[in-house]
Amino acid sequence: MGIRTPFGEQFGLTYPIVLAPMAAVSGGRLAAAVSNAGGLGLVGGGYGDPDWLEAQLPVVRDGTSHSWGIGLITWIANRHIVELALRFQPHVFFLSFGDPRPFAPMIKDAGCVLICQVQDVDAAIQAKAAGADVIVAQGTEAGGHGALRATLPLVPAVADAVAPTPVLAAGGIADGRSLAAALLLGAQGAVIGTRFFACEESLGLPAAKQRICAAKGGDTVRTRIFDVVRGYAWPAAFTGRALRNRFTAQWAGREEALAQVAERERPGYQAAAAAGDFDTAVVFAGEAVDLIHDVPSAAELVRRIGVGAEARLKAGPSLIV
Amino acid sequence: MGIRTPFGEQFGLTYPIVLAPMAAVSGGRLAAAVSNAGGLGLVGGGYGDPDWLEAQLPVVRDGTSHSWGIGLITWIANRHIVELALRFQPHVFFLSFGDPRPFAPMIKDAGCVLICQVQDVDAAIQAKAAGADVIVAQGTEAGGHGALRATLPLVPAVADAVAPTPVLAAGGIADGRSLAAALLLGAQGAVIGTRFFACEESLGLPAAKQRICAAKGGDTVRTRIFDVVRGYAWPAAFTGRALRNRFTAQWAGREEALAQVAERERPGYQAAAAAGDFDTAVVFAGEAVDLIHDVPSAAELVRRIGVGAEARLKAGPSLIV
Repeated sequence: MGIRTPFGEQFGLTYPIVLAPMAAVSGGRLAAAVSNAGGLGLVGGGYGDPDWLEAQLPVVRDGTSHSWGIGLITWIANRHIVELALRFQPHVFFLSFGDPRPFAPMIKDAGCVLICQVQDVDAAIQAKAAGADVIVAQGTEAGGHGALRATLPLVPAVADAVAPTPVLAAGGIADGRSLAAALLLGAQGAVIGTRFFACEESLGLPAAKQRICAAKGGDTVRTRIFDVVRGYAWPAAFTGRALRNRFTAQWAGREEALAQVAERERPGYQAAAAAGDFDTAVVFAGEAVDLIHDVPSAAELVRRIGVGAEARLKAGPSLIV
Repeated sequence: MGIRTPFGEQFGLTYPIVLAPMAAVSGGRLAAAVSNAGGLGLVGGGYGDPDWLEAQLPVVRDGTSHSWGIGLITWIANRHIVELALRFQPHVFFLSFGDPRPFAPMIKDAGCVLICQVQDVDAAIQAKAAGADVIVAQGTEAGGHGALRATLPLVPAVADAVAPTPVLAAGGIADGRSLAAALLLGAQGAVIGTRFFACEESLGLPAAKQRICAAKGGDTVRTRIFDVVRGYAWPAAFTGRALRNRFTAQWAGREEALAQVAERERPGYQAAAAAGDFDTAVVFAGEAVDLIHDVPSAAELVRRIGVGAEARLKAGPSLIV
């Protein structure tokens, strides 16, 4: 069994499920597990720490004989870190949040498939022009960084704008229903983050995974306060969706006040993050937390989501009279 | 042909498409046209103007032999206006934005099917407890009033929370793809607003319909400024998604400043609204404007969305290997 789309076929996927390259969460072991289970595993290179990448990329490269990839945050990436990643010969390079043009030629020259994640239609058109082979339309319900448009109306709008370039859906997808819905919307697959955060192989701390399992969709908020306290100069268009906690209760909506004391607050924040104190530290998570109640293996998740989507797709015609 | 769900079957619908009861836009003629085309037409009673309802409800009652309904804004409704509407013997009563308990018994005693629209899971559970026969899960991408959760992850979460009560999806649905997606998500139908705003029979002014056709999804914004200038005391949880215009450029994010001059600004605003000056007056519209490019008849829209969804549902199994 399996679900085949042209995108999935290109990489021999059993299911068109792509692991979102969640920074510091999607490590080499998780990426390999997703690829070995018939999805496409992407390592979350995030802000481009070379030591972290040197540690994680061999794990995925040596951990799977299937296709895998690497994701970076575009606005903070540089040629050095892209070259470092390319030396591990990923099959896929995933760029999100920024202009992909500085890196597209070197990625494509290396024989990598370039996937660009966008948050609106204009950026989709620009990414296609920059050479993206695949476009991800990411909705605001996604965990972590993103913008304002919602997945359901964004995916068909992006698909129309960039056809025949393949489009994947991201944001709010965590089970078979939402994968099936994404496929009927016109996506050739789905990028799934938060659901994989709460799996055995993710690098998220157990306490963070438990918060995701316990949270409801209304417990998330889009905010830039975690970027402010960490000292990341994210472009204004992008905020991060995270679980509400004591820190968001204290600072959300007071970004400028936090910015003024950020350097003083930073050591305490970093200590909380290191200690797994998620009353202070961020747990990036999307609105699909409503659908997440356990911490299974990545392989079980790929199977569960894939089989669930198959069942939905099969049942669709029974609605027609 | 047609698409059958238990919800649609209850009303003999050809397609499980419900006209959103858009205040001052979904008049009796539009509601009748949707019902006659095989959907379910709802008159947008909005804030409950008795003269408007006395004028519009006979049009739908006498304009269709199929099921039809009436929608009101719950927080501003009163027993008098509910009784007035019930005298026209609607088949469906649609309540949104507030506690349905004060009105649920009289509506159900009248033999009406009670549909409650909610914006989060907790409100869905409360609406079911209040006696709702059907729950609408409305995502933030919807035009007009709404809240923060997005449709794609909200619909399955609400469906799980209130099962086996039927759930409809609202927000971001404007074509066959999005209807098909909503059905695979677990909805038994879709409530569609903005797409019907831009149809022949809607009471929207031609200039407003043209703005919807020209707009992109990024041209909408959730804001309370149009409520502030109009003097409506909406509960804080609800904002209205509208097309950006000169008025939003001037006031969005400056609600408190606008509130201080609202009485002075109101006559000018009302004159602009009456004159169809949509640089100032509101055009409520959802993110699905990306998918809206023409002003056909309501019957053509029901057919187009329904046939499109059929095609998607039929094609789903071809993805399975």
